[in-house]
Formats: sequence, C-alpha cells, structure tokens
Amino acid sequence: MQALVLEEKGVLSLREIDLPLAVGPGDVKIAIHTVGVCGSDVHYYTHGAIGPFVLREPMVLGHEAAGTVVEVGAEVKDLKVGDRVCMEPGIPNMSSRATKLGLYNVDPDVRFWATPPIHGVLAPYAVHPAAFTYKLPDSVSFAEGAMVEPFAIGMQAAARARIKPGDVAAVIGCGPIGIMVALAALAGGCARVFISDLSAEKLAIAGQYPGIVPVNITERPFAEVLAGETGGWGADVVFEASGSPRAFDGLFDLVRPGGAVVLVGLPVHKVEFDVAGAISKEVRIETVFRYANIFDRALELIASGKVDLKPLITGTFDFDQSIEAFERAAKGDPSDVKLQIRVGEGA
Amino acid sequence: MQALVLEEKGVLSLREIDLPLAVGPGDVKIAIHTVGVCGSDVHYYTHGAIGPFVLREPMVLGHEAAGTVVEVGAEVKDLKVGDRVCMEPGIPNMSSRATKLGLYNVDPDVRFWATPPIHGVLAPYAVHPAAFTYKLPDSVSFAEGAMVEPFAIGMQAAARARIKPGDVAAVIGCGPIGIMVALAALAGGCARVFISDLSAEKLAIAGQYPGIVPVNITERPFAEVLAGETGGWGADVVFEASGSPRAFDGLFDLVRPGGAVVLVGLPVHKVEFDVAGAISKEVRIETVFRYANIFDRALELIASGKVDLKPLITGTFDFDQSIEAFERAAKGDPSDVKLQIRVGEGA
Amino acid sequence: MQALVLEEKGVLSLREIDLPLAVGPGDVKIAIHTVGVCGSDVHYYTHGAIGPFVLREPMVLGHEAAGTVVEVGAEVKDLKVGDRVCMEPGIPNMSSRATKLGLYNVDPDVRFWATPPIHGVLAPYAVHPAAFTYKLPDSVSFAEGAMVEPFAIGMQAAARARIKPGDVAAVIGCGPIGIMVALAALAGGCARVFISDLSAEKLAIAGQYPGIVPVNITERPFAEVLAGETGGWGADVVFEASGSPRAFDGLFDLVRPGGAVVLVGLPVHKVEFDVAGAISKEVRIETVFRYANIFDRALELIASGKVDLKPLITGTFDFDQSIEAFERAAKGDPSDVKLQIRVGEGA
Amino acid sequence: MQALVLEEKGVLSLREIDLPLAVGPGDVKIAIHTVGVCGSDVHYYTHGAIGPFVLREPMVLGHEAAGTVVEVGAEVKDLKVGDRVCMEPGIPNMSSRATKLGLYNVDPDVRFWATPPIHGVLAPYAVHPAAFTYKLPDSVSFAEGAMVEPFAIGMQAAARARIKPGDVAAVIGCGPIGIMVALAALAGGCARVFISDLSAEKLAIAGQYPGIVPVNITERPFAEVLAGETGGWGADVVFEASGSPRAFDGLFDLVRPGGAVVLVGLPVHKVEFDVAGAISKEVRIETVFRYANIFDRALELIASGKVDLKPLITGTFDFDQSIEAFERAAKGDPSDVKLQIRVGEGA
Repeated sequence: MQALVLEEKGVLSLREIDLPLAVGPGDVKIAIHTVGVCGSDVHYYTHGAIGPFVLREPMVLGHEAAGTVVEVGAEVKDLKVGDRVCMEPGIPNMSSRATKLGLYNVDPDVRFWATPPIHGVLAPYAVHPAAFTYKLPDSVSFAEGAMVEPFAIGMQAAARARIKPGDVAAVIGCGPIGIMVALAALAGGCARVFISDLSAEKLAIAGQYPGIVPVNITERPFAEVLAGETGGWGADVVFEASGSPRAFDGLFDLVRPGGAVVLVGLPVHKVEFDVAGAISKEVRIETVFRYANIFDRALELIASGKVDLKPLITGTFDFDQSIEAFERAAKGDPSDVKLQIRVGEGA
Repeated sequence: MQALVLEEKGVLSLREIDLPLAVGPGDVKIAIHTVGVCGSDVHYYTHGAIGPFVLREPMVLGHEAAGTVVEVGAEVKDLKVGDRVCMEPGIPNMSSRATKLGLYNVDPDVRFWATPPIHGVLAPYAVHPAAFTYKLPDSVSFAEGAMVEPFAIGMQAAARARIKPGDVAAVIGCGPIGIMVALAALAGGCARVFISDLSAEKLAIAGQYPGIVPVNITERPFAEVLAGETGGWGADVVFEASGSPRAFDGLFDLVRPGGAVVLVGLPVHKVEFDVAGAISKEVRIETVFRYANIFDRALELIASGKVDLKPLITGTFDFDQSIEAFERAAKGDPSDVKLQIRVGEGA
Repeated sequence: MQALVLEEKGVLSLREIDLPLAVGPGDVKIAIHTVGVCGSDVHYYTHGAIGPFVLREPMVLGHEAAGTVVEVGAEVKDLKVGDRVCMEPGIPNMSSRATKLGLYNVDPDVRFWATPPIHGVLAPYAVHPAAFTYKLPDSVSFAEGAMVEPFAIGMQAAARARIKPGDVAAVIGCGPIGIMVALAALAGGCARVFISDLSAEKLAIAGQYPGIVPVNITERPFAEVLAGETGGWGADVVFEASGSPRAFDGLFDLVRPGGAVVLVGLPVHKVEFDVAGAISKEVRIETVFRYANIFDRALELIASGKVDLKPLITGTFDFDQSIEAFERAAKGDPSDVKLQIRVGEGA
Repeated sequence: MQALVLEEKGVLSLREIDLPLAVGPGDVKIAIHTVGVCGSDVHYYTHGAIGPFVLREPMVLGHEAAGTVVEVGAEVKDLKVGDRVCMEPGIPNMSSRATKLGLYNVDPDVRFWATPPIHGVLAPYAVHPAAFTYKLPDSVSFAEGAMVEPFAIGMQAAARARIKPGDVAAVIGCGPIGIMVALAALAGGCARVFISDLSAEKLAIAGQYPGIVPVNITERPFAEVLAGETGGWGADVVFEASGSPRAFDGLFDLVRPGGAVVLVGLPVHKVEFDVAGAISKEVRIETVFRYANIFDRALELIASGKVDLKPLITGTFDFDQSIEAFERAAKGDPSDVKLQIRVGEGA
C-alpha cells in the first residue's frame, strides 16, 4: 500500500509500505478520503521528535482523517459498509483504570496515530475500532470530517473550562489551535471571545467570525482591552493557546476573581509561573490533553451549523502532492490555517 | 404617582398611589421606560394568588422593567444619572446565609416585586439597590432590557443544567418560558434544541430560530423523535417548562443515561413521579427558582447578538392602555409571547 | 459444580449445575470464599422478579463476593494466582457510549450477576474480568471484602451527593442500604449524619457509630429534629434510602435552600412528588444506580480504618446452610443487617 | 484600650490605642478571649510587609480570635449577649460582584484584620458584623474557637479540591497550614493523607493522627512513596502547602492522571512550572485564597469530634506576655504548631 512515510527527520517519501489491515471483531476498515496536515505531523518532519516521542524508524504520518467504511468486524453494530466517517486517532486500553473513569485520553497505554512508533493514516486504507469511528451526518463533508480532530482539541478545552452561558472568554494565540478554541468557546456558551496575537493576518482570519474579537497586542495590551470590555472585572475564562512562555507573564491579569485559566498550548520548557497572582484571585487552572468523548458533540455542532470550519481549510492537495503539502505547511505562512490532502476520490 | 394597581382579583385600575421613593445610600432611582407583562402578573390578576402568595390588599403589578437612572445614592459607584438600565426584581437580605453562599435567590427573606405584599413597578418611578440594577449596553433597547428578566429564567435553567458544548437538549412546553429556556440552552452551548408542544402556532414562533427544532406532539411522541435524532441515546438535557402534570409521564424516556432533567415549570399540585425511571438511568434532576448572578451574562448574550429576543415582543401598549394589555394577556392568544407596556417616553 | 440455585419463585436448591468456567485473556478465575445475602437475592427468592427482571429459568444467586484468584488470563497484568480479591458484579460492554463516558453502570448492555438471566456466584468458582476484580489489602478480610458491594452503593450515593467537608446529612431509612449510605456519607466528608426509621432496633445498630445520630420518627418528625440541629436551615444533603412512598411526603422540608436530595431507595410504584417544594429551594436531586469506579475507593476507606463494616455482619453460614441463610434473611429480623455464606475454607 | 501594637518592623508594644467600638445595626461587640498567633502576624513583625501589604503606621495584630458577645446591634437576630463566638476576619463589600457570586474572599474591597492598614484584634474588645460572627457549640472551647480561622484555610483547600469519598491525598509541607490541610482533607472524605517534610519533628506531630501518614523526604522521594502506595497510579489530590519553589520540581509526578493539585502555599517569587507535565496528565489545578462560607462547616467538624485541633495548641500565653509569645513564634521551633494568647478571663 502507498503511504506518506516520514523516513527520518526532514525526509518524506510517498512509497509502498506494509501496514496491518486485519479487521478484528470490533474494528472497521476505512477507505481514507481526506487527511489534514497537523502541526505535530509537521514538527516530526522538521524536528524528528516531540518531547519524549522520538522518530526512530520510518513512520506513516497523518491523524486527522475521514473516509468511508469498506468492511466491518463481526461484532460491529453501529456502522455499516458505505458509511462516511471520521476517526478519533487514539486507541486506549479499554480495561484500564483511566478508561473506566471516562478519562481514556490520559490512559498511559493509549496508542495514538502518527506518534512514534505508531503509524498514521496518510494511506488509502486504515483499520480502526468502531468505538472510535464516528458516522458523519449527511450535511458534513469529508473535508469537514477531517477537521473534527483539531476542532476536538478546542472542544475539550471548552468542556474543561466549564463555561457558563454568557461567559466572556479570552484566547491567547491565534494559530490553528487558538482559533479552534475560540470557535468551541463561542459555540459552547460564551457571549464574546477575545483572541490575541501579534500577527494581523492570523487575527483577520479569526475576526471573520461574529462574536470573535481580534486583539492585536502590538497595539494594546490584552489585559487593558479585557479590562475595558468588562468594567475592570476580567474574562471569565482565559485559554492559553500559544505555548509561548511570554504568555505566562501577566496571565492572571486577564482573568476575573474566581475565574478559570485553561492551558492548551505546550511550552517547550518550564515557564515562570506567578502562583501568588493565581492565588490572590483564587483562579482555577485546567489543562487539556487531546480529548475524550468529544467527537460526537463536535459533529453535532458542525452539523447543526453552529460551527463553520470550512473557511479554515486554506489549501487542498492530491495524495501525490503530499510532500508539497508538508513543505508548504513547514513554511508556516500566517494566512494558512489548515492544509488537507485528498487521498480518495469523490466529494 | 400613577401606577397600575391590582385592587383585588380581577380588578385593575390605573390610579394614584403612594409609593416610597426615598433613595438610600446604595440605591438608585429609575424613571421606568418599559415593563413586560409576565404570566405571574396575569395570574394574580385572574386568580388573586399564586400558591402561598395571596393578594390581601391593593398591589402595583410589574417586575420586568427597564428605564433610566435619575438619581443615585451617596455610595453608588458603578451607575450614574442618565444610565439606561434594567432591574433584577428580587432584593435579598444581603447578610443572610443563602446570600453569602451566592444563592440569594433562595434566601427566605427575599422581597420580590409584584409578589404580595411587595409592590411592582408599573409606575413612572422606582427605587432599587444599585447592586441589582444593570447598565444596558448601547446596542440593547429598553424593550430588550425589559426582556432580560424573563430571559434570565431561561438562563438560570441553562446554567443549572451544566450544558457541555455540543449537547442536545429537549424542552417540554413552548410557552414564553419554554422559548426562553430553548434560546438560553442554544446560546449556552447546545448544538440543537428540540421543543415540544400541542400548539402549532406556538411552535412556529420557536421554529423561526435556527437550531431550535419544533416538535408537535399531536403528531408524534417526543421520545420517539428524540430517539430517532440521537441514535436511540436520548437528549443530554431535558427541560420541563410546561408545568403540566402530563409532562412527567414518560419524562425519563426523553433523556440519555447519565443525563440531566431540569424542572422549570411549576405544577399546581403534586405530580406522579417515576423514581425507578430516573434511577435506572442515574439521571440528575435540577430545579430552577428565579435566578441569581444571571442578569449580566444575559445582557452579554443579547448585546453580542447571540440571542435575539425582539421577535418575541408581540405587542406594545402605552401606559394608559395598561389594563387593555392585561386583558389581552389574560386571553392567552397562542401567537402572543410577550406584551410590553411603555411607561416612559422616547426609544 | 455445586451452586445455590433459585429454581423458581420460593424454591431454592443446592445442587450441581453447569457454569461456564473458561478463562478469557482478560479474565481471572476465582475460588469463591464468602458471599453476602443481598435484599435483591431475597426478593427474587420471595417474589421471582424485580421490576422488569423476571426469573424464567433456574438461576444461581449471589453477587456480593470475595475469594482467591486461582487462574489468570494471558493478558492479565495486575492480578496473580493467590491474590485475595473482591468482585464488582456488573460487566458492561467496554466499547459502549456510556462506558466510554465512565458511566458503565448505566450501560444498557451491562450483565449483572444474579439478575435474570445472568447467574450469580454462590458456587465454588467464578470467572470474571480482571478489570472488575479488586485486590484486597492485607488488612481486609474475605468477610469485609464481600461487604464492598453493598457498601459501594452507599459510596456511589455519597459521591453523587458531592458532599462538601463539614456537611450535615440526613438519611431516610435505617435498613442495610441506609446504614451503608450513612457510613459512606460520614467517611466521605459529612460532620454529622442523622438517620431516621420507625424501628428502634435498626436505629440502635446505626447509632453505635460515632457521628451517626439515630432519629426515631415515631417520637418526633425528622424535619423538626433537623431544623433544631441546624438553626432552622436544614440538612445539606438528604439521602432517601427507604424506597417508601411516604418518604416523599415533606421530603423537601428536610433540606436546606440550595441543598441536595439523593434518591437511593427504589419505590415499587410512582410516588407523589412535590415539584413546587423542590423548586422553591432550588434543590438538586441526584439518583443512584449501582456504582461505577467505586470499589477501589471503598476498599481504601475500609483498609484505612475509616469505615468498619464488621459490626454489620450479623450472621455467617456454611455453604451447605445456604438455604437456611436465605430463610432467615426472608424473615427480615430488624436486628439483622447482613448475613453471609462462607463457600470456601480458611479465614 | 490596651492592644498589642506592631509599631514598625521588629517593634511590638502592648499599649493604649484608640480603636473604633461603635456598634452598627448589623454588628456585635465581642469581649475577646483567645487569639492565635498566625504566621502572617509574625511575618509582619519580622519583615514589616507581606507582598503588596506594607506596614506604614502602627497596627494592632491578631486575627484568629474567639470571645463572648457583649453587645448586639439593632438588626442582629441570630446572636445575643453572652454567646460564645469566633470571628471570620475579612469583611467584604456585601454588594460587590464577587460577594453576590458567593466568592466574597476574592472581593477586591475586602478589609481583613491585621492586614495593613486594618487593625487586628489583640485587644480586649472588637466590633464585627454579626454575619461573620459564628456561635461556638457548647462543646467547643475558646481555644478551639480561635483555631477555626487557620483550620478554615485547610477546609477551603479541601473544598476546592472537590474530594471524592475514599480519595488518597498528598500534602507537601508539614507546617501549621500543611497539618490543617491534611486534617481537613481527611475529615473531608479522604481515606489516607500522606504528608511530606524534611523535619522529623514536624512530621511526628502530624503522624499522631490516624489516617495521616508522615513521609520524610530526606529518606525517600515523595513520588516514590506515593507510587508504591497507589500501585503506580498517584494521589488523587495533591496539596502544595509549603510555598517552597522546590515543591514545584516534579510536582506532577505525585498526582494521578486526571487528578487535582491544590496550591495553598504562597511562594515569594515566581516558580518554575512544568506545563507539559500538568497537561500530559490533564491535571486540574486549584488555588486557595483565605476562605468563604467555611466557618460554620469547620465548626461542625470540630464539634462533632471528627477533627481534634487541641493537640496543635503548643503554647498559651497571658495577654501581658504577648510580646514573649511573638518572640517564641518568631524563633520557629519545629515542635511548635500554634501559640495562643489569652486576652480574657475564664475557660
């Protein structure tokens, strides 16, 4: 089977590779249609590692995927051949302590697509547990289906925030994850979401959504804008989605007394953290690791029209242009949010 | 001062009455502009009592109000003369145990406008604590400001539900409160809200909002519709907003395992309640009594445009037509959602 | 294999029966040591059915069990032969929507020991998933291990209540479940737990625990006692553990404004429910269905000595006296809390 | 009136000072009986400031106080002359946004005893709002009443943790606050509480309470002990009560996946914080600022006997020995937990 293989840091090839395609009793086999290019895919390409996960042998990339069921295992009841689906890329140990608690995302044994040494799905076919394969509503395209994975991170952040209806939110960082968080927070109950960045181009993309207010911090401090908009009270929820250590400087000036800060971005090193600042407002701090029990509710919001992810797909490539797609993604054009690779045929 | 006085059950008069207008240090005096006619006002008019609250002497009606600050007490800092405002009609004991907990709505000593023997505000002026008087954003009209109170009940229901982003909700009863609940649930994070009623006219009003799906239960059982739309799983949250004892028959068939039922409607008598049905799905049941800490977040949602209450104002009357307004409200035309009385001048 | 078989309503026999004993890769085989007699076992014996669960063919009874691992499946890592264990009697579909959420107790496909048509474990051996088999700390005896299951119901009730440290609780009904709830609430953070009943004998058993205050409602109304003990405020949490319809009369007089009522007892029929009473205090009502993710924390509390269940074991029978044990349990002596059957040898 | 006055950094005098003793309508006047010496009192004595709070003029010390009501304001209903009481030392603006939410501890306008420039209560009399004055149950002595304030911090930490019955907790730091947190966590639902320190003397004090397990980290890393005691899973809740920057090194190794870390200790400077470590376990981090709505439930636990604070009172001084008490506290003997000053007469 052809697949996009990361041979080693910096070296991609589209070539034949043997991948296991046996369909177990609870599995489905999917003809892959569309796969998004994720920042983590690009990071493995450019750096060969993310934290403790180091590429040691060739690995297929890709974990934001949608396609069509072509075979179902003997015990699968809720899916059938022909169903259009998207897939949740992590497979936990279903009997583990974390999974029994509903926290399968933090199961230490989870196997996650395109995280060394687990292969991803930039290939014509993949086999996956039906339990982590979600039927796309008719109104949701494959391209949107392949956006569910990155949107799910924003949704997990919104869920962990425990938004109350009418909250005011602030998002630090207007990259792809920051925008996903902002959209999820808005659909998830916030009245207004302020999003900050240094890049006017990135902010312009977020600003096209009513309810999302872009704030260029080269012009005015974020804390000052939020204070002005909330009568000096601060945002109910602040999402840190930049991963920048600078975001932690003055972080608790953004949030109201008794508010919440949600850490989504992953700084490379330890950060300088103002414990006294957090304590003096008795802030609750939540963290976000991937997602659990989110795909179905993300699909609900996309299908209902409350969230429109299509404007964020800024480039689509054929499968044989996959390497070109990664090269463009690696350049990091600020006007690019999400590039996708169309592996399969049809709409 | 002229006021709309309920003299006794069935007898309204627009006449002079002495009302206290002394402005304490923490109070503001408001020139009333618009007052909505609430179902409870009408009920006092038609029945003379609601549960334990019995009209024993003449009482001014009205508690859904907006106006303009014309005087401020010595210690008021956040409001000034000329501010356009709406008012939260209950005044708790600020030092009580419930209030200290943030649950001032359930403070046994709360004094609530137009609940015997406390006068309401269908009059040119009212005095109120600044702490329960909220500045209207420029984009929010007096008419919308007077809608905040009924919308706040929907918001309280949505807050108590602890909606997760992308939840599917069901609302039983498409009266004014049911619609408020549906709008709050949708703005508060639900992907879709199904609302049921017997009246096609009422359902048509709710159905004009994208995301709210009307279900006429003269045609198909609500449980069947919800099962069909959720793969047999049920709604994440069910709001009971009819107050009808019949709503409790099969209530727990609507909700998913581990879901929530929120009781908003007030049945006159005890209801037949299926404890075993609730237990077998381990349902959480929340109840809603007025609101607390909701007006500011309701205003956020209205000002941001996420919630549009204007289509629900189906009739506006001048102050000297107040009795006519109540007569029309008492008729209960299903195409009427909210009638308002314009006490003051200007927009 | 010998087993205690309920042949039909009212007919028990201790006889040979074929039970499946194949050990799957995730399973363990357990030599059963002690099995408690549960009210539900007795109810099947005396009535042949509980609600929709009707005995249609012979079924082995017993689901409160402890024993010793004698064989482990190929993939079992956390248990080994010789481990002393207790078992959680429900086996859900591990891939279901409810289970993925951590709510495996409300998975519609759960298979539960001694619930028709699933056999129980009043037999020398049983096979069970390792994921639902819990190692007993050295300080916990088999007899205590077999008490974990009924205690887990109390623990689930305490968990659902979301007790805050120092809460005052009230428990309606001083049967075995009421006592378990009271012990779990006390260990789970309550300062005091008031428990009510009509039987002085039952109350005397609960009253031997410091912190549990028995209230004989033949002498004084429960609401009056609670009001007196809380300055008229009410209990923070009220647990309904009687299943009696009379418990719902005045139920909300027991609880404080903004407090919680937890429904544990299962009334046979619908009850008369005072919605207005619940709403006027904005009470949260939780329900309890078995338990999920509770056995390990129940064992923690027993092993640490915070909860002592040994005084509640009021009779122990040999396996060949099993029918006698059921006959005594069916008599319902108020001084009996828990009878146990010792199937195996040794301590 | 005589009072213990901190004249400037390092200079205490017991001398006459004019303090306002007018009793407002909602106030009570209290004859002070016992006042505890708090670490913050000592810090103002030795350093003249805590963070932004700088002593600029003479200030009376003391905020952990109990006494007897000697006069009540006109509107006070729940207290009467002769009542034995303890007092919550912060007075918020009762109409503020934070207070209305029930979060009066984070009201920016709160006035707190013995925090410059607000006088404390090491004096024969004090006037205080009845709303923040709590009647002592008969079984609670003045000495215990004066312990409620420091215990309330532990209680607030336990409340913010949202302990589930049977949780395993870890507390970093065995100073007075660490011990208070450990006791509150244990009474608040934990099965076991491990507490770490470098000082064997401090650990010996904590270790006298059954359920609290001292861990000397000069002998063995805390993470290793916790892993061993929890099968490698980690503590459900970790309380940081040392304020030491070193506590943040490896902090998230102590906690289980999906667990909680509660920050109680106040580091002087920013700390190095491992965001990636927190995120990879999706840890919830709570912070604690004083307390709100805690005194009544702290008293419940003390009165019921679940919490015994008496062994922590390691020295009692007469009022005229006050300076000596502060000198001993400033020495920081590890075997001292709490010193108290007896201002009044009698038991």
